[in-house]
Amino acid sequence: MKIVNYRLHQPFATDRVGIIVENKVIDMASASQQQLPVSPSDFFAMGQPAIEKAKEIATNNQHLQASYAFDRSQVTLGPPVPDPKKIICVGTNYADHVAEMGSELPQYPVLFSKFSNALIGPEDAIHKSTATGQLDYEVELALVIGKKASSVKKEQATSYIAGYTIGNDISARDLQKRTPQWLQGKSLDHTTPIGPWVVTADEVKQPGQLDIRSYVNGEERQSSNTRHFIFDIPSLISFISDLITLEPGDIILTGTPDGVGLAMDPPQFLQTGDKVRLEIEQIGEMEHHIVTKP
Amino acid sequence: MKIVNYRLHQPFATDRVGIIVENKVIDMASASQQQLPVSPSDFFAMGQPAIEKAKEIATNNQHLQASYAFDRSQVTLGPPVPDPKKIICVGTNYADHVAEMGSELPQYPVLFSKFSNALIGPEDAIHKSTATGQLDYEVELALVIGKKASSVKKEQATSYIAGYTIGNDISARDLQKRTPQWLQGKSLDHTTPIGPWVVTADEVKQPGQLDIRSYVNGEERQSSNTRHFIFDIPSLISFISDLITLEPGDIILTGTPDGVGLAMDPPQFLQTGDKVRLEIEQIGEMEHHIVTKP
Repeated sequence: MKIVNYRLHQPFATDRVGIIVENKVIDMASASQQQLPVSPSDFFAMGQPAIEKAKEIATNNQHLQASYAFDRSQVTLGPPVPDPKKIICVGTNYADHVAEMGSELPQYPVLFSKFSNALIGPEDAIHKSTATGQLDYEVELALVIGKKASSVKKEQATSYIAGYTIGNDISARDLQKRTPQWLQGKSLDHTTPIGPWVVTADEVKQPGQLDIRSYVNGEERQSSNTRHFIFDIPSLISFISDLITLEPGDIILTGTPDGVGLAMDPPQFLQTGDKVRLEIEQIGEMEHHIVTKP
Repeated sequence: MKIVNYRLHQPFATDRVGIIVENKVIDMASASQQQLPVSPSDFFAMGQPAIEKAKEIATNNQHLQASYAFDRSQVTLGPPVPDPKKIICVGTNYADHVAEMGSELPQYPVLFSKFSNALIGPEDAIHKSTATGQLDYEVELALVIGKKASSVKKEQATSYIAGYTIGNDISARDLQKRTPQWLQGKSLDHTTPIGPWVVTADEVKQPGQLDIRSYVNGEERQSSNTRHFIFDIPSLISFISDLITLEPGDIILTGTPDGVGLAMDPPQFLQTGDKVRLEIEQIGEMEHHIVTKP
């Protein structure tokens, strides 16, 4: 099942949770007779019960004819989880990327964060602000947490995942590296696409076996597979939840493979007008324009 | 005015916003006839209008006799802002602390973050988990943002502050330093006290001139003054808001002075049973026990 954050093309429209069925968007609050919340944030904060209820609804074809089923042309998609309590990013989690960044193979996962001010949806443009001259892409598999997770064992870890989405951990390299801590280069307003939807965990049997790619203006830049993770998904959830209790709707960005612009010779950074395309097998694809920050 | 997050000593009590008047806690939702929200998170997310309304109420002594005025003994205080969208921490912002940590004087503010899983109130105990053997204290002046702030000029910066509180940026030094990014040592569950209240900005005329101290088991460890900031408060707000839009209720921890346990010879870390006391002039004081994480 694909869960989206959608907004109708009409005045005063707000973000609503939908699911994609036969290329239509079915409104979840309406289809559930208001048993499910309107807001995507509230939906994901409910965690697994919300997803189970949505799955039940998805099996009923009658909703396709209802007044709350919309064509894709009638809606805009936003970030599927627009306001997570936590966005935890894993740095240097593919060996090839560690090498190209001149780092050492990490003994422990490297964790840092973004804030939700950075998040944008699959149809938004990435803002390039004048604060940076070195905007760079990082395609990443993103996990959405489905239930409260504290000191979770590896063996149980995947049961805490609600679903998967694609993230672009856009990084302003100059800002990221001008101090020892990366945050200021990682959380610029309106820079971090997630989407296009959350694919529920039941549909991704092998999240550690997915092809992952990025392209800039049609040129392939990153091409790897999540089997090259240094710390696999169960290890990450177990490691993080030992330190930090995870909540439903929290997002974990699992790291990026080699091929970022900074590591090219000479480095190639994103410019206004560029298009970045991301693809992850079984999840989907997204393409974003870079625009000058208004 | 002092704004608190309080909870009555009764079953099913929830966090509510109050103000302190003559050592009583006045419930803000009741006193405002439900014009103000019950929840401290909602109150601070409203920003300045909520604070202005609360100030109006504070001038009316009649509330002291009302059924919604409680003795301090009837309530427990929680973290005044329990679930901020962002907790932005400034690293190495006092020259003496930079020296003791063996760092270089920063050219730009060093920013990192915590998540709200770490927050506790003035009457809670700090949890020492088995994940760390090097728990350390850092007394800090904390700002609470009062209105949306994007690209704010230094001259206007203080008008974006709702108020001030005390924070203890408790740090697990071993976890903080085992990877290049500090997050995993900075956001352990139930480790970061803020409080005891938010003192509104109008009552703190010179936030850059406040004595700031910490004590462990009665022994003075840190003693400085916010005049020793490397980046002063207007500079921090201007710098951060150029990169990251701030929202009402966001918290900025402004850095700690020298005297942390890690820098002692030999280093002295916090142990179960220790008591940490924090004081900031004009804001207040808090004392926390260290307990083994249950």
